[in-house]
Amino acid sequence: MRVEIWSDIACPWCYVGKARFEKALGEFPHRDGVEVVHRSFELDPGRGKDDVEPVLGMLTAKYGMSEAQAQAGEDNLGAQAAAEGLPYRTRGRDHGSTFDMHRLLHFAEAAGKREALLDAFYRANFAEERSVFADDERLVELAVAVGLDAEGARAVLADPAAHAEDVRADEREAARLGARGVPFFVLDRAYGVSGAQPVEVFARALDRAWQARTPLAMVQGDGDACGPDGCAVPGA
Amino acid sequence: MRVEIWSDIACPWCYVGKARFEKALGEFPHRDGVEVVHRSFELDPGRGKDDVEPVLGMLTAKYGMSEAQAQAGEDNLGAQAAAEGLPYRTRGRDHGSTFDMHRLLHFAEAAGKREALLDAFYRANFAEERSVFADDERLVELAVAVGLDAEGARAVLADPAAHAEDVRADEREAARLGARGVPFFVLDRAYGVSGAQPVEVFARALDRAWQARTPLAMVQGDGDACGPDGCAVPGA
Repeated sequence: MRVEIWSDIACPWCYVGKARFEKALGEFPHRDGVEVVHRSFELDPGRGKDDVEPVLGMLTAKYGMSEAQAQAGEDNLGAQAAAEGLPYRTRGRDHGSTFDMHRLLHFAEAAGKREALLDAFYRANFAEERSVFADDERLVELAVAVGLDAEGARAVLADPAAHAEDVRADEREAARLGARGVPFFVLDRAYGVSGAQPVEVFARALDRAWQARTPLAMVQGDGDACGPDGCAVPGA
Repeated sequence: MRVEIWSDIACPWCYVGKARFEKALGEFPHRDGVEVVHRSFELDPGRGKDDVEPVLGMLTAKYGMSEAQAQAGEDNLGAQAAAEGLPYRTRGRDHGSTFDMHRLLHFAEAAGKREALLDAFYRANFAEERSVFADDERLVELAVAVGLDAEGARAVLADPAAHAEDVRADEREAARLGARGVPFFVLDRAYGVSGAQPVEVFARALDRAWQARTPLAMVQGDGDACGPDGCAVPGA
């Protein structure tokens, strides 16, 4: 069974939801039969690389919250993160473009390091003081910390086209599947879970999708093939 | 939509079936929405690395064919391959273990070169004189020809555990899905095609699987998530 998870590094609920999903998966009896694949989604795809601002300023300007409302939201998110054992700085975080990070995640995927880099990006963005935005060397440092090659990471960052189409393809697929926000979980392309649901919802989704694994519908009888007893001989 | 193709390099019908599938895919109107993934399957998993013999000898010894029957089978396969525009040596091919090639295919996958290397292995095995079996430098040469790193390929070959579990995982998955031979095509984990079917069977399978793409069943209403209009505020 395959679970695809669309998320954005700038999405606090993705950070929290990933931990909740992993808790459900860790308790799932068939967890060894579950493959998890991470996919890209940008909450703010139009934002320029150097357009960085404090989260609170973004929340008040873009969504018309008062500063107190915005801070209360961060405080609440910090509490939700803490409940999952995740560090979260409720003061002084930045917001910016995550496109380059998604391009690096696709670069990391080719080396089998996508999830490690995603976790490193989350941790850096939500829990560490130094901003992850508009700072290529910060991203290279995080890539190297999970075992990626510094020069390879720099080359991706220096070429805006590198893995750009991979990110866009993930985003088109999310739209096609009906995701309007993230985190968005898709189980065997049959069941969906939207948002950082409680652990028991993920557990139910895993159960349901596992039960629903159906035998394949064969489109035709067997054609010419090779098997343990040899290959079909044409005309035989 | 995702199409997974299980195949073995030593499988002539896989070589032919891949070309037929690709013809159907090339004519499929939604081909840009189809992702193709190749997976490993060994027809002869117990064979030792140095256990190489002529195909005709293997066919007569293992399957009790007469030499004339075995040669007629090869001639027929050569004709089927030619009909798809594929070169095929009907005389003098070898048979041996493909495990190391599958391990290299997984190594190539990490660099986005799996299909290129699979095509190179097929071509080398079915159309070129030099054997691909029990000859590590031959495999390294083919890997380099598709853009892989020679030292990386040698390191995989030198370590029998490298990507071994990836190959086994593909094979377990094939067994679970009911594949008893190859090529075996799985569309969105819902439809299967067994064998080198005619192009029109692949076309029908693509149509059917495309039509059957269903909206996801959401396991629960929306949970806390971030979207283009901001993040849910807990308790708000």
